[in-house]
Amino acid sequence: MLLRGAGRFAGDVIRPGELHMRVVRSPIAHGRIRSLDVTPALLLDGVVAAWTHADIAELPAIGFRLTPLPDLLPYRQPVLARRIVRYVGEPVAVVFATSAYLAEDGAELVRLDLDPLPAHLDADAEPVAWVDAEQATWAAGLGRELPAQDSQATAFTVEYGDVDAAFAAPGPGYRVIESDARIGRHTGVPMECRGLAAVYDAAEQQLIVDGAAKVPFWNREAVAAMCGLPPRQVQVRETHVGGGFGPRGELYPEDVLVTLAAVRLRRPIKWIEDRQEHLMATNHSRGQHHRLRALVRADGVIEALDAAFVLDQGAYVRTHGATVASLTASMLPGPYRIPNFRVRAQVRLTHKTPAGTYRSPGRYEGTFARERLVDRIAGELGLDPVEVRERNFIPAEAMPYERPIQAMGTELVHDSGDYALLRAKVWEKFDLDGVRREVAARRAAGELAGFGFAFFVEKSGIGPYEGARISVDSSGAVTVTCGASSVGQGVDTVLAQVAAEVLGIAHDSIRVVRGRTDQFEYGRGAFATRLAVMAGSAVSNAAQALADKARRVAAHTLGVPEEDLGLAGGKVLVTGDPARALTFGEIARLLDPSGAAELKESPGLTADGWFHSDHMTYPYGLHAAVVRIDPGTGQTHVERFIVGYDVGRALNPTLVEGQIAGGVAQGLGGALYEEFRYAEDGTPLCTTFMDYLIPTALEIPPIETLITEDAPSPINPLGVKGAGEGGTTAVAAAVAAAVDDALGRPNAITSVPIHPAQIRGLLA
Amino acid sequence: MLLRGAGRFAGDVIRPGELHMRVVRSPIAHGRIRSLDVTPALLLDGVVAAWTHADIAELPAIGFRLTPLPDLLPYRQPVLARRIVRYVGEPVAVVFATSAYLAEDGAELVRLDLDPLPAHLDADAEPVAWVDAEQATWAAGLGRELPAQDSQATAFTVEYGDVDAAFAAPGPGYRVIESDARIGRHTGVPMECRGLAAVYDAAEQQLIVDGAAKVPFWNREAVAAMCGLPPRQVQVRETHVGGGFGPRGELYPEDVLVTLAAVRLRRPIKWIEDRQEHLMATNHSRGQHHRLRALVRADGVIEALDAAFVLDQGAYVRTHGATVASLTASMLPGPYRIPNFRVRAQVRLTHKTPAGTYRSPGRYEGTFARERLVDRIAGELGLDPVEVRERNFIPAEAMPYERPIQAMGTELVHDSGDYALLRAKVWEKFDLDGVRREVAARRAAGELAGFGFAFFVEKSGIGPYEGARISVDSSGAVTVTCGASSVGQGVDTVLAQVAAEVLGIAHDSIRVVRGRTDQFEYGRGAFATRLAVMAGSAVSNAAQALADKARRVAAHTLGVPEEDLGLAGGKVLVTGDPARALTFGEIARLLDPSGAAELKESPGLTADGWFHSDHMTYPYGLHAAVVRIDPGTGQTHVERFIVGYDVGRALNPTLVEGQIAGGVAQGLGGALYEEFRYAEDGTPLCTTFMDYLIPTALEIPPIETLITEDAPSPINPLGVKGAGEGGTTAVAAAVAAAVDDALGRPNAITSVPIHPAQIRGLLA
Repeated sequence: MLLRGAGRFAGDVIRPGELHMRVVRSPIAHGRIRSLDVTPALLLDGVVAAWTHADIAELPAIGFRLTPLPDLLPYRQPVLARRIVRYVGEPVAVVFATSAYLAEDGAELVRLDLDPLPAHLDADAEPVAWVDAEQATWAAGLGRELPAQDSQATAFTVEYGDVDAAFAAPGPGYRVIESDARIGRHTGVPMECRGLAAVYDAAEQQLIVDGAAKVPFWNREAVAAMCGLPPRQVQVRETHVGGGFGPRGELYPEDVLVTLAAVRLRRPIKWIEDRQEHLMATNHSRGQHHRLRALVRADGVIEALDAAFVLDQGAYVRTHGATVASLTASMLPGPYRIPNFRVRAQVRLTHKTPAGTYRSPGRYEGTFARERLVDRIAGELGLDPVEVRERNFIPAEAMPYERPIQAMGTELVHDSGDYALLRAKVWEKFDLDGVRREVAARRAAGELAGFGFAFFVEKSGIGPYEGARISVDSSGAVTVTCGASSVGQGVDTVLAQVAAEVLGIAHDSIRVVRGRTDQFEYGRGAFATRLAVMAGSAVSNAAQALADKARRVAAHTLGVPEEDLGLAGGKVLVTGDPARALTFGEIARLLDPSGAAELKESPGLTADGWFHSDHMTYPYGLHAAVVRIDPGTGQTHVERFIVGYDVGRALNPTLVEGQIAGGVAQGLGGALYEEFRYAEDGTPLCTTFMDYLIPTALEIPPIETLITEDAPSPINPLGVKGAGEGGTTAVAAAVAAAVDDALGRPNAITSVPIHPAQIRGLLA
Repeated sequence: MLLRGAGRFAGDVIRPGELHMRVVRSPIAHGRIRSLDVTPALLLDGVVAAWTHADIAELPAIGFRLTPLPDLLPYRQPVLARRIVRYVGEPVAVVFATSAYLAEDGAELVRLDLDPLPAHLDADAEPVAWVDAEQATWAAGLGRELPAQDSQATAFTVEYGDVDAAFAAPGPGYRVIESDARIGRHTGVPMECRGLAAVYDAAEQQLIVDGAAKVPFWNREAVAAMCGLPPRQVQVRETHVGGGFGPRGELYPEDVLVTLAAVRLRRPIKWIEDRQEHLMATNHSRGQHHRLRALVRADGVIEALDAAFVLDQGAYVRTHGATVASLTASMLPGPYRIPNFRVRAQVRLTHKTPAGTYRSPGRYEGTFARERLVDRIAGELGLDPVEVRERNFIPAEAMPYERPIQAMGTELVHDSGDYALLRAKVWEKFDLDGVRREVAARRAAGELAGFGFAFFVEKSGIGPYEGARISVDSSGAVTVTCGASSVGQGVDTVLAQVAAEVLGIAHDSIRVVRGRTDQFEYGRGAFATRLAVMAGSAVSNAAQALADKARRVAAHTLGVPEEDLGLAGGKVLVTGDPARALTFGEIARLLDPSGAAELKESPGLTADGWFHSDHMTYPYGLHAAVVRIDPGTGQTHVERFIVGYDVGRALNPTLVEGQIAGGVAQGLGGALYEEFRYAEDGTPLCTTFMDYLIPTALEIPPIETLITEDAPSPINPLGVKGAGEGGTTAVAAAVAAAVDDALGRPNAITSVPIHPAQIRGLLA
């Protein structure tokens, strides 16, 4: 459908009489609102309404969807700034007009007078005063007074074993090896900026919200609460989106404003974000600084790891709560045993755009920090980095392997895996020993060529549940309706394939309905690489239930035992006598409410399936890069990029490869190009694609992949793990190792993105 | 919502880029299409497409929804006329343009050249040749050749006992009494003409059809088949409608054209019928001529009834098939035992607008014929008409009373009733003996005043099923979703009341979703006064199931036995300790998919309910009228109109009274004002409200009602019978009796509408 140009993006939703919204944003990073007057905008012909915080004072701050630590409540973002602005781009007022142009003109007429205050931009620095008691009390919304809060929103420690004891009494030959790792602030930049179109349909008593993708069911509840409507009066409908990647689809101030305006003004409201807004308003991510200290045996085995990191949260804590910090902490040990482990997380506010999750949140950061450390261990001990990794791997025979900590609120159990086997397979398929020799030869010939690799463990399939309904209409046509969401990852195709396999029909004959809160009651959303596992398993269960029901009806009607019946070509047929058959359409018609009552079945050839899970599943992989550095410009060119990834089971290998290719491209962006930089006063320096460099096809080599299915997940019926994020996870780590190698300077790279200027400095 | 002006009628559905459809209709009653050219229309700027039958030649004729006798197949209507036109107003071509005005201009440019043929207008005359073999074969669509057919589409006999034997050997003192009764051609004329708005949503792969009300599920299947789509790709959504009454909401040629154009042209299509079209294009009804011959004992008891009638079907047989004839036949005996009964039905084609059902189809006609006969028996035997009726009534103690024939495919069993009791109650409440004396006194004083009454039995609650789902959202708000339809009869209110009573909440807090084929999978429609019985019972069952589920969860959570729990105010509370309670919202949240799995419940505080029925239920009533005739003009003025009606149980007495008042008004239209008349060449003479006289508030007296609940139905859980049609059924019979009385000429009136000219003739 997208290929035929028949997709529907938010901008394609056009309603007669619609109003366009434009947000007036703070031009400074920190300041006090001295006065704010929308009257001049209201005088413009075509402007229908304009609001400041005073107009929406009854709205609470935006809540948390994930990891809602109570510490974070005072830092929640108001829908429009109240008294203080805290980052450039913060919504301060909003204008609704009969065209997007008039709305923009109106927004420019809004008079905003600000008293600048000093901008705090360094999350590593000592915390500063952040919100006063009044703001803290208001933002927390607990109904009780809170004191003023400083810029450290929360800090927590995740640990097991006894790190202090291990460091206090090291074994003979043990060494302490330290490292430092910084990941630059960057984020997912979808091709299509955000957008939302809402209308309050008075005849239906429905607030209909088109555009959100990712977590429509959560957003439905949130929007309903914000607008003072019962959830039954709100429908959220996903449009197609030009990419998701984590930032898109969360509940933002703009979403609340669009929906509330639809209710209040009784006109269709539309808002389409422009690129400059997107780069200032939509969640940033990644900005983290890690310090690691490992106690290591002479053979490279890590006995203990003591780590700490600071997350630069930006100006507010948004819907993700402490998810990135929490995942960084729990996933930091990765594929290694590390018997004693401790990590201290600090989430700190700065006067920058608020941060949230971005593809492989916490793992991109933690994998960079950990794998850089392992490379440093290898370097300092004079060991091969492959050897050090293999000595530390959780062995296949130890699976399932429980690490006594939690990840996303679940017990962290590596459900299956053979890390050494994957390493060996990748090495063999791509002849990486040969690659290393070749690179060394090029270096010997004077070229700045290098090879590097990194290993990672991903997580996927967070529960607690997902559901699906499969229905067959009177013509035999099959529809899968479910709570899954699509942010462009091809979930429709995968779910159709799962159903098709069970039902014995062509997957492209199946219609998948998802992202429609009026069609299915529950869905947890498209995040954390969960849908193939959770929705896939639910669809599988529903398809099995449907097949059973069809067989029961056919057995009764044809007068044969159920076990003699098979499904193929849209029919239930007698094994060995395929002329005796009922089509799905015939069975559906037999199951009309009257027939169903006689057959003692529920009406319709339809069945529900649910999948519940208390644990995540853990795919794993290896990234390897060959780079060449231009000695003149300091530019790093990625010549080859290799991904080995065990996904348990690849439901659709083409989609898995697509996920990996896209993920690598985004990983390379963070490793080499993308960074949100700020001037000293907090002015963002990267608000266009002239300044915020996303890699293009010219920068990305063909991605070479080895998808393996050696470790199917034992905790779901499909054995699937999930492939959404593993293309991204170890890119920075592998590229940094390759750059070290190219420079011939072990441990030279401790931060990403790797800037040409920095390389030139190292070369000088 | 309607009171607040927030309703949505088809005309309110406005989509960007929509095209408007205009139908080119035959200007003559019968003719051969010599040539038909849409090119001139296509040359008009703004006209996007124009079709004749050649453009839709692959479409079959319109099928039957009810009473699909095989005899009728050759008479089905093509979507656009093929070769021959058969009534004035028959769709011949169609034009789509960017505005309704341009579409109309375009339609006027279509060149239609016709060879006139003689019009056959008299259904009583001998049948004439009607369709040739080619047309019969095509229209039947059976895939085999049919011969040419004459204008008698079908004839059938319904009988029990032995009529011939009874007449052959009458008892001593028995008399044969004959009568004749004609009912004029008229129909339901809703305030809002028909309309439809359709769009093919390529992104959703959904054909969305707004506007149809009455039988959206059947229409969905029909439209899907006509447009070559699986039903899963078609959504039919009821809008509000300005009245239904039977004609509205059936599948007409225009509906097929609008939906097919939406699919083919990929533009939103809208069609709004104008009044002139409505009066020529939408189903007519009622035109019937009855002949009755009764064998009667001296005491007035009817021993045998031999009846025959001819139904003037108009030019084609539409979706109702032979429903009107079939219901006329089966309901003709009404409240009387009549041990030997036979009726011969003849359905005949004429060159008039096709006919279908209209409020109380077959019963308005049959009641007029039967009650006029009973009055004649009383007159000829010199008995009181009350006495004759009571002697013939099925006695209360004989209930349930099976009449060994079928009605609408079900065994005809009068489920409960005490006809004499209702007669007595009405007589007492309105002092009808006093009224009769008073009228006689006025007559004695020279005034042309008269009193008349008639008794009737209605039928309602045709099965086979109806279903409903009740859901509670996380805020505790309750939604009833069901397959019911609304044609303005207040079904939302009644269904909410039924649910509210079981759930112990206010009915106006309940949202009712119906007429949405994407929200509920099955529904049989709003016709034959079936919804209070069928959907009401389904909602009652669903509400009971929901209440049980809520109690189970509350019992588990509060740790008390289920039987100690009651429902009130949106809570489940411990009897005697109401502080211990769970709100519906709390229970709904406990039943999220995870919680539900632990509780071994299906997810959500939601439950389905179904109601199945093989039998109809039979309400009954009495109409009485006081009239005064203006001796100068011959005009009949209805001074009083009294309705006694036993509905088993009145779920909402205000709505029952509203139904009765509206029904009486329409019955009076047929009795005194409304008639479609035709010129000799078949030109319709009544195509505006100047010529087709619908009664206004000036003509309708206040309706006086006695609603009784003496005979609850034993065949549904609510005991309800249904009140949609009983306001209409006996109006013509009662008014005719009153006019007889006013004229002092028994049996003077044998046809309706009663024309002033006819009265003047009788007075002369």
